[in-house]
Amino acid sequence: MDLFKKGWYSEVSEDFAGIAQSYEVESQLAHEKSPFQDIEVFKTKRCGVTMAIDGAIQSTEMDEFAYHEMMSHIVLYSHPNPQRVLIIGGGDMGIAREVLKHKCVEIVDNCDIDEKVTELSKKYFPHLTSIPSKDPRYHLFFQDGAKYMETKENYYDIIITDSTDPTGPALSIFNKDYYTKVFKALRPGGIICSQGESIWLDLEVILKLRTIFKEVGFPDVEYSIIQVPTYTFGSIGCLIGSNGGSCKKPRREMTKEEADSMKYYSKEIHEGSFALPQFFKKKFESE
Amino acid sequence: MDLFKKGWYSEVSEDFAGIAQSYEVESQLAHEKSPFQDIEVFKTKRCGVTMAIDGAIQSTEMDEFAYHEMMSHIVLYSHPNPQRVLIIGGGDMGIAREVLKHKCVEIVDNCDIDEKVTELSKKYFPHLTSIPSKDPRYHLFFQDGAKYMETKENYYDIIITDSTDPTGPALSIFNKDYYTKVFKALRPGGIICSQGESIWLDLEVILKLRTIFKEVGFPDVEYSIIQVPTYTFGSIGCLIGSNGGSCKKPRREMTKEEADSMKYYSKEIHEGSFALPQFFKKKFESE
Repeated sequence: MDLFKKGWYSEVSEDFAGIAQSYEVESQLAHEKSPFQDIEVFKTKRCGVTMAIDGAIQSTEMDEFAYHEMMSHIVLYSHPNPQRVLIIGGGDMGIAREVLKHKCVEIVDNCDIDEKVTELSKKYFPHLTSIPSKDPRYHLFFQDGAKYMETKENYYDIIITDSTDPTGPALSIFNKDYYTKVFKALRPGGIICSQGESIWLDLEVILKLRTIFKEVGFPDVEYSIIQVPTYTFGSIGCLIGSNGGSCKKPRREMTKEEADSMKYYSKEIHEGSFALPQFFKKKFESE
Repeated sequence: MDLFKKGWYSEVSEDFAGIAQSYEVESQLAHEKSPFQDIEVFKTKRCGVTMAIDGAIQSTEMDEFAYHEMMSHIVLYSHPNPQRVLIIGGGDMGIAREVLKHKCVEIVDNCDIDEKVTELSKKYFPHLTSIPSKDPRYHLFFQDGAKYMETKENYYDIIITDSTDPTGPALSIFNKDYYTKVFKALRPGGIICSQGESIWLDLEVILKLRTIFKEVGFPDVEYSIIQVPTYTFGSIGCLIGSNGGSCKKPRREMTKEEADSMKYYSKEIHEGSFALPQFFKKKFESE
């Protein structure tokens, strides 16, 4: 924890050699090792209550809304009538909180491998967990996502993969076998949205996943950029595979209640997020 | 330099208490104190040759194109026929390199307060300086920007303020007196683009500048977001005041040569960059 300076949390990943981000810590709240990963919860001076898994920040009170809104609403508003949604990962319930805003959604299944993430989230991140915990449409269970996918066929309208980076337990969901199952689990018109890493850091991982999405059968594979200040280099993306046509424009209007609840997402943001810097666009759209 | 760990450069600004970004340094190239500021040049493992002024990273080889392209092309393509352009600050010539891509531009005046920035840029950042240095349309001089503005009236089509943060020498260009002079120095239809800080860090500074832009007379005041990974929290913006209507859509087509030269900017990026996260949009568009 104190690699650089006592009293600060520093994220120094081996994947991104030579870069570190540090946050002054006001108090350490929890540090637990589950059978799957190392989980820390602390409060930083600038970003509020923060969860880090295996040394990488997952969410902070300050900016969690950006990631959770975009990972949910880009694909949900791109589907004409999403009724059944599956979240793989996301045991902190941040994605579920957003998905449940859609009245047309009847079932939200949420499969995370690590119960400890949920236990700590319920204690320290009530802004994420309190709404899903009370909603009868929401079903959370703890199981390996790749295995769970084998049990469902032609069932979901939307699948959202809210995973950590492709090391540790998330490794099993960054490959062709997993996305073959995802493709089968979707109904006609179904859409997958996966945590799509950073265009500035992970170009090769993104291009590899894009190719997998195409190979397993998605006719439209697109990328939407999200600003998340506390992720390394300040952005992450949604990698989207669609059986229902391009997701670049929303297919449903927001209700006023939905619009008022958003801190990041809007129709303009939806459309603007697909505008990709040239250096990345040329690579992403090449064969 | 080695606040956190030997061999790393850490940016820890007093303005942004509780956050730091660090880069592993391969070699230190220069460290000079001019009469105005403290300037460091070093090469980092991840981001190449880097310049920092008064402890804040100004440009790195890896991502300088994002800032320089957007600060130039958003306003230049929004003007139907920009002929005379003034750059205040920008002594590293990065903005000039981009502005000079426009064939219609006849004069590029560049006023920076600190000759030392240019001297070090010529030595260590030839990718910024080599093209402007040879272009007869380009005139660089060293003077206080606010004072220089008094000498010109009804003259420029575009003014770009490429400044450091509003501390140190840049303080004189973050106030109403400066923008009153900017407004007078522009011809009818003229546009100002100022380095617009970060929506995640500097909300109050941005709102204050927006109000100043309106008070001095710009009918359209708009904000465009740029991803710049090595700036704190990964983004910065263009604050734009226009006498020629909204800048949200380009008014001129790019030539193929111009389009091929871009690593970040495109028509889609131009339009998408004005899509603002809701939390910021509500504040920015309120009175």
